[in-house]
Amino acid sequence: MNFNFLDKINSPQDLKKLSNQELNILCSEIREQIINTISKTGGHIASSLGVVELTVALHKIFNSPNDKIVWDVGHQAYAHKLLTGRRKNFHTIRQENGLSGFPRQSESDHDAFIAGHSSTSISAACGICKADEILYNSNNFTIVVIGDGSLTGGLSYEGLNNASQHGREKLIVILNDNNMSISKNVGAIAKYLSKIRSAKGYFKIKDKINNSILKIPVVGESVRQALIKSKSAIKETIYHSNFFENLGFEYLGPIDGHDLDSLFNILQRAKDLSKPVFIHIRTIKGKGLRVAEKDPCQYHGISKQDPNKISQESFKDFSEVFGDEILKIASVDKKIIAITAAMRNGTGLEKFSKKLPKQFFDVGIAEQHAVTFAAGLASKGCIPVFAVYSSFLQRSFDQIIHDAAIENQHIVLAIDRAGVVGEDGETHQGIFDVSFLSLIPGVTIFAPSNYSELRKFLNIAIYECPGVVAVRYPRGKESYLREKYVINNQQSYHIWHENNSDTLIITYGRLFSFVCDFKDSLELEQKNISILKLDKIWPLDNEIIILACRFKKIIFIEESIKNGSIAEHFGIKLLENNYNGKYIIKSIDNQFVGQASVNRSLEKLGFNFFDLDQILNKI
Amino acid sequence: MNFNFLDKINSPQDLKKLSNQELNILCSEIREQIINTISKTGGHIASSLGVVELTVALHKIFNSPNDKIVWDVGHQAYAHKLLTGRRKNFHTIRQENGLSGFPRQSESDHDAFIAGHSSTSISAACGICKADEILYNSNNFTIVVIGDGSLTGGLSYEGLNNASQHGREKLIVILNDNNMSISKNVGAIAKYLSKIRSAKGYFKIKDKINNSILKIPVVGESVRQALIKSKSAIKETIYHSNFFENLGFEYLGPIDGHDLDSLFNILQRAKDLSKPVFIHIRTIKGKGLRVAEKDPCQYHGISKQDPNKISQESFKDFSEVFGDEILKIASVDKKIIAITAAMRNGTGLEKFSKKLPKQFFDVGIAEQHAVTFAAGLASKGCIPVFAVYSSFLQRSFDQIIHDAAIENQHIVLAIDRAGVVGEDGETHQGIFDVSFLSLIPGVTIFAPSNYSELRKFLNIAIYECPGVVAVRYPRGKESYLREKYVINNQQSYHIWHENNSDTLIITYGRLFSFVCDFKDSLELEQKNISILKLDKIWPLDNEIIILACRFKKIIFIEESIKNGSIAEHFGIKLLENNYNGKYIIKSIDNQFVGQASVNRSLEKLGFNFFDLDQILNKI
Repeated sequence: MNFNFLDKINSPQDLKKLSNQELNILCSEIREQIINTISKTGGHIASSLGVVELTVALHKIFNSPNDKIVWDVGHQAYAHKLLTGRRKNFHTIRQENGLSGFPRQSESDHDAFIAGHSSTSISAACGICKADEILYNSNNFTIVVIGDGSLTGGLSYEGLNNASQHGREKLIVILNDNNMSISKNVGAIAKYLSKIRSAKGYFKIKDKINNSILKIPVVGESVRQALIKSKSAIKETIYHSNFFENLGFEYLGPIDGHDLDSLFNILQRAKDLSKPVFIHIRTIKGKGLRVAEKDPCQYHGISKQDPNKISQESFKDFSEVFGDEILKIASVDKKIIAITAAMRNGTGLEKFSKKLPKQFFDVGIAEQHAVTFAAGLASKGCIPVFAVYSSFLQRSFDQIIHDAAIENQHIVLAIDRAGVVGEDGETHQGIFDVSFLSLIPGVTIFAPSNYSELRKFLNIAIYECPGVVAVRYPRGKESYLREKYVINNQQSYHIWHENNSDTLIITYGRLFSFVCDFKDSLELEQKNISILKLDKIWPLDNEIIILACRFKKIIFIEESIKNGSIAEHFGIKLLENNYNGKYIIKSIDNQFVGQASVNRSLEKLGFNFFDLDQILNKI
Repeated sequence: MNFNFLDKINSPQDLKKLSNQELNILCSEIREQIINTISKTGGHIASSLGVVELTVALHKIFNSPNDKIVWDVGHQAYAHKLLTGRRKNFHTIRQENGLSGFPRQSESDHDAFIAGHSSTSISAACGICKADEILYNSNNFTIVVIGDGSLTGGLSYEGLNNASQHGREKLIVILNDNNMSISKNVGAIAKYLSKIRSAKGYFKIKDKINNSILKIPVVGESVRQALIKSKSAIKETIYHSNFFENLGFEYLGPIDGHDLDSLFNILQRAKDLSKPVFIHIRTIKGKGLRVAEKDPCQYHGISKQDPNKISQESFKDFSEVFGDEILKIASVDKKIIAITAAMRNGTGLEKFSKKLPKQFFDVGIAEQHAVTFAAGLASKGCIPVFAVYSSFLQRSFDQIIHDAAIENQHIVLAIDRAGVVGEDGETHQGIFDVSFLSLIPGVTIFAPSNYSELRKFLNIAIYECPGVVAVRYPRGKESYLREKYVINNQQSYHIWHENNSDTLIITYGRLFSFVCDFKDSLELEQKNISILKLDKIWPLDNEIIILACRFKKIIFIEESIKNGSIAEHFGIKLLENNYNGKYIIKSIDNQFVGQASVNRSLEKLGFNFFDLDQILNKI
């Protein structure tokens, strides 16, 4: 595909030469490029489509990489990548060895700071600003672009609360308000923003500004400056937001985030003000892709699809099975409360939220609150089930310890996206939850390997375990299992013991079916191994250790970071039981896991027949 | 000591019978009791003295335990404990087997929710409220008491943002504003509160209310109700806070939090309103104790002292040594930035903040922000050093992974209060940091055992290690070491190898001197053991493992939770090196650690000669 303007932009400098009319065409070209590429590669399409004009305007008015643009969450940064020298590699986005789907400092000077989790941008920008001042005494700007959803996260508030005390004049926070974030936005802040958005006279005021103060030609610069610096002038013409002003910011907005002229004007004004500025722009998530505009939740991220065939197909996966089962349980037990942190769709709770709205809470991107709220519910007898992606649960670590585990409050963590997640890469890998949960006293962890086990252990977690109980399951679908590997009992582990085997492979969760396949492949060569499958992976019953001790060789295969893993705990228990055979752990050793498809990631991490053969031969 | 009124109060019901005049006397008695007890036991005296009247008023107007009072941080709850049936055991507070220094649901029905860490109360109260509604359809109130310092934590904002969406009319948040919190309060919210506090006409308005609306006798109830429910009436008489109103609360205040009449009136009004209410009261931290009022930072918590001799004595401890050293380093290197999350005094940074104010940041109780801010600083070449208590660092877990470790930003974590902390008990034990840090790829951890090592490894951490580097040290002072155990080189481990010993004890940090004493005691009995002391405790160099493998028996002694500990990682490495001797871990196994003095805690956990002898005999 060829583009008149986009094809010529190899750095933001090239963009600055274009006329406003040409820039408008450039926006269309960027949109087309994004839609075409992402429909092939998969990715967060709606967020990026919403900020095309903003991105162009930022690169027109500011000078990246001297001025730093910090993208919150980061999946808004596709247009930014296209304009900052990565156009030719854009088709590799989110693929193995390709461009990251998020900003990465290690990928480009234009990417000021890593993103992937929400609400980090303002805090990071405070640091960047301050370093600029202390080390370089520079006049560079640091510009944050943050969605309204990210404002529901407490970290963003901590950042706002601290930003003004830095006393820097070079910090600009742009609120990209699409009234949507990932799921429909919730909470008081969302209502407040909606109040501002619908404030009377907004459009008229904007026109007035455009026609008066803002379009004064360069010759009238001193007048413009004087007008701009007069607080009263600003407050009369622009909506007045006590909320953000109380947090120490000059508030400008709201303006139409798809109107380049307005964007140029407001960004220029922000540059001229001598205090931290908060710019409020309104955008449409998924702008330019009709179906995405209509249902942006559904298209927050898309899988690889024919661009002509983006439709609402539904596939059953672990998330949906969880959603159906928890709905079934909660329908007959009002004590059950489902909680999500802005991941209603992703965690399979859409149906639940509609059928049992009184037992459902979307708390926004506020994982800390979710757990403490759950503990509060539990303290009075409810049974809260917090459905959350593994990597986002990292935000709740202290709350799980402090608010839930110490007093042994019974809360259930339904951990989705446990294990490697594929194209989202390092920031989203669910490889730490086993370690950080099993170090907390009293926590129980289940790791079902298929749908029927997920249903079973979810029920056991809710009704038969005290304290903090986690049920973790991977992204995607269950794998096919031969009948001999399907079990239907209430035990929390199962062994497939071959009579003349001296080797035991221990595993759990998604890798179980892979290990079964490996065992079957060995049988073709007349080799026998035994398999021990754990369902309750923590705590470990001593009888399991005794069982394992009978084998001369044990290999523990685990899709988790090695330090603090179940494989480590298991190994220590073997030592304590005076085990004198060989023990090998095959897990993820002291490394972050980059982007690639789930299957390819697993293969690269050594979860493949070749590597297992090597281990078997060595042991 | 005998008290006329306090001695007769065995439950809040007894308090309700007293006249206002008698309640005022009761307040004095409570203050006297707290001062006398805490000067003997140690504890958080200033916070509790500030809320005596509020506590009395809450128990007068509300009905605990049906109405739930959720104390944020919880060290404000001493008066509450005195009034809720725990008076006779009050002298046991913060001591082994005694009352907790914090609210504990397991201790009393009147303690609605555990506290210890900051900013959890609003989220917990949301859960309690909602459970009340769903399970019991009750009309009980949930009342939060939260300090202004706690408002700087993002979790409190997540709670506020969610509170109003619950649509409950029974949630009352009381801001106990002493303009102070733990250190001097910081950030935009602090400025905002200060603006409200100093608003003109406040006292006059209060008088007007007391004399008009609020003191209408019961016969005029319907009139009073009508007045109260008229929003305009309230807004005319009480200060108008857009900030909290934008968050969905009715704002009432600010009033004098030491005036019982005002408190009764405002609490009664809050009960009558039909929406979440935010009450702003002004208090004096340390009220009633002259020196504490004057310098409440110093008296936030006090150690055991003669009540007549509370003075500003200073003792050198690990915190101070850290503070002096980092000041020395930063004085000649402007890249060094010291960060604290509201623990300027506690972490030894008081001097630093005065001498190098431009390189110092107190971010409020915002540990998440502190780490992301640090990562932002690091991304531009500063070297941030975040001084933080171990248990509070739990709040930064995701930020350490996501914002710092993935891009290998060089930040230094100076972890104070690592290991057991004594009387603060479960919520404050620093026993998880080793596990949750060592599971993160690329993190380096040092554990100096004395002051000179702290200085040395702080310098190494800052200038010689990449990525996230932690230096952890215990609360309190270094122990005496015989000269043979003092080392002065740059190695990151050291072995005291006795020729004819087949037993190796591995340890680090505070326990090193204890192990030395144990070795010395064995020598008296002609028994020899060797000691391996780790300084860089993670990652482990392979040569250390090889060294250890020479011993037939290895005991790893570690003041940390066992799961994910260095002892576990070490054990696995022994297994992988085909070690076939005996390996025993002596650490903290799957349990929370209750309150007791540090020494007694260590002893109870098995870090004593008797238990070590047992292990030696068994191995």
